Amino acid sequence: VTDEDELVPRLLAAVRAAGGATTGQGVLVGPGDEKAVLRPAPDEDLVWTVDDHVEGVHFRAAWGLAAGGRKAAVAALSDLAGLGARPLGALLALHVPRGRRGVEAGGVDEAALLELCRGVGEGLAACGCPLLGGNLTAHPERLALSTSALGAVPRGRALLRAGARPGDLVAVTGALGLARAGLAWLEGGGAPDDPRVREAVGALLAPRARLAEGRALAAAGQPACMDVSDGLRRDLPRLARASGVAVVVDVDALPGPSPSIAALVEPGRPPAEAAARLAWLGGEDYELLVAGPADLLAASGVALRTIGRVVAGPPGTVRLEGALAAAVGDAGSGFDHFA
Amino acid sequence: VTDEDELVPRLLAAVRAAGGATTGQGVLVGPGDEKAVLRPAPDEDLVWTVDDHVEGVHFRAAWGLAAGGRKAAVAALSDLAGLGARPLGALLALHVPRGRRGVEAGGVDEAALLELCRGVGEGLAACGCPLLGGNLTAHPERLALSTSALGAVPRGRALLRAGARPGDLVAVTGALGLARAGLAWLEGGGAPDDPRVREAVGALLAPRARLAEGRALAAAGQPACMDVSDGLRRDLPRLARASGVAVVVDVDALPGPSPSIAALVEPGRPPAEAAARLAWLGGEDYELLVAGPADLLAASGVALRTIGRVVAGPPGTVRLEGALAAAVGDAGSGFDHFA
Repeated sequence: VTDEDELVPRLLAAVRAAGGATTGQGVLVGPGDEKAVLRPAPDEDLVWTVDDHVEGVHFRAAWGLAAGGRKAAVAALSDLAGLGARPLGALLALHVPRGRRGVEAGGVDEAALLELCRGVGEGLAACGCPLLGGNLTAHPERLALSTSALGAVPRGRALLRAGARPGDLVAVTGALGLARAGLAWLEGGGAPDDPRVREAVGALLAPRARLAEGRALAAAGQPACMDVSDGLRRDLPRLARASGVAVVVDVDALPGPSPSIAALVEPGRPPAEAAARLAWLGGEDYELLVAGPADLLAASGVALRTIGRVVAGPPGTVRLEGALAAAVGDAGSGFDHFA
Repeated sequence: VTDEDELVPRLLAAVRAAGGATTGQGVLVGPGDEKAVLRPAPDEDLVWTVDDHVEGVHFRAAWGLAAGGRKAAVAALSDLAGLGARPLGALLALHVPRGRRGVEAGGVDEAALLELCRGVGEGLAACGCPLLGGNLTAHPERLALSTSALGAVPRGRALLRAGARPGDLVAVTGALGLARAGLAWLEGGGAPDDPRVREAVGALLAPRARLAEGRALAAAGQPACMDVSDGLRRDLPRLARASGVAVVVDVDALPGPSPSIAALVEPGRPPAEAAARLAWLGGEDYELLVAGPADLLAASGVALRTIGRVVAGPPGTVRLEGALAAAVGDAGSGFDHFA
């Protein structure tokens, strides 16, 4: 029995103690000694994604490793949400910063890993996704998590970025820019427990994936859809490009952070402008971005905010409209080739 | 269009130019903008694995990044071989050492990534596995690849570590310890193109996965099976433990490197002893370790070397026998609790 073989069951126990499952419907062999073996349901397609979280890049040990693990799990599951899928399971590949090959149990390192896995368990539990396996690798420098997620959708019903057509509405779930505001607050030295920014810090450290919303949208039809993880400014052109359309955004309609939060993190700007910029640039929002006919979006029953409309135009281009367009225009001009 | 969005198609083109496919049977949506969408065949189970390769730990840039990419791909597919599966696809998560978030095209970095992806393409092509997606992540220090692989087996026929019973033979494909010998040679400053160690260096830098052998074994029945990636010393107790049995190994029968290679990399020992030690300790062998009835193993048609037998005993324990047992005994004594 190697150290790694002894450590893995303890990490899995930490995932379970946090509410995370390690088996599920259709799972024949779960985590531990073996790789995962699954029996897919008939009449479902599989969707498959991978997402990486690197300490110091996507999360910080100083903010708590449980928060890092939770965020990594939810971010990976958010990809499945954007596809309209129900989660089947996740594999977790961990880079563990030790000086030599092989992972040893004991000491601070095991406590840190258990804390990280507690967060992974919380995140997966919130998403209803079991952990089915993974890999432990020694890494000379840096803790990192690579999360591969597998989901299922009714045959032919996966939500894709393609399919938006001129006349469609463009809409999003929830609020945008909150995690960006939380990040700016913490990086500026703000206290994580300041009640004035609780919503923003919570969005950063404890995001949720819009799985129910994705499945409801898929059940209503096939709008173009994706999760917003890199911010609207980067993700909206991707959806437009995949659909071969252009998009007009009403910047005034963007559901950004409250003016009070915006003013705290960008004190040099009028609050409405600051909020619009945060919403537009965003990042790690994990909301759904959707484009489809108004009646389809309404029939889904998902709470959506309309932020624009699909138009004919050079594929992938975005035009900003509204009184606040100028406030975000400099940020957005990089790809706005047809304004 | 971000830099990352421009880079991904060029990396995929490098995979294709090396012979790697980016679509396959049952693949509805392949790599690029979207996550992978697959339609599983009826009457098949899915097997799912993840494996990590970190530069400086599992491969070295000095040995060529194509070799690193090839090795990472083959190692991940070797997991599928051990399960008796046919590959459905792979996802590749790349950590790219750049100082800031976001991946830019251009310069040495892109050339290095293209070289790496050429190797990934070669490795996947050799395994008949398409690349279906992935993720690019900036990493402050170190290049790494996390490869998630999905395979299919006839329902209920996945090969597992469990199932070995007293009376079964224990056998392996190919040779053991060659990659370890190649590593020792290169780390000792030996020339990679020295014809005397060609086989060993080749095993290290250009391994192959025993996919056909795994499928043939699964077709013949259900022997206990796994791929040997951590060396027989670590992997054999895992198979024995999962099966709830003990194993007796005939050290004299281990298919190690040739005496001439063994003498070159362990000049201080008698060649036969050095070869046995290399075979026993091994690592990155990517051969199949199998335990099953003699007639089942014979019926599979797979070229196997019998190295021992399954006996009743404390689960997971291994006893070494043979004239060379003493030569490897010190290496193996750590887990040999019932000798």
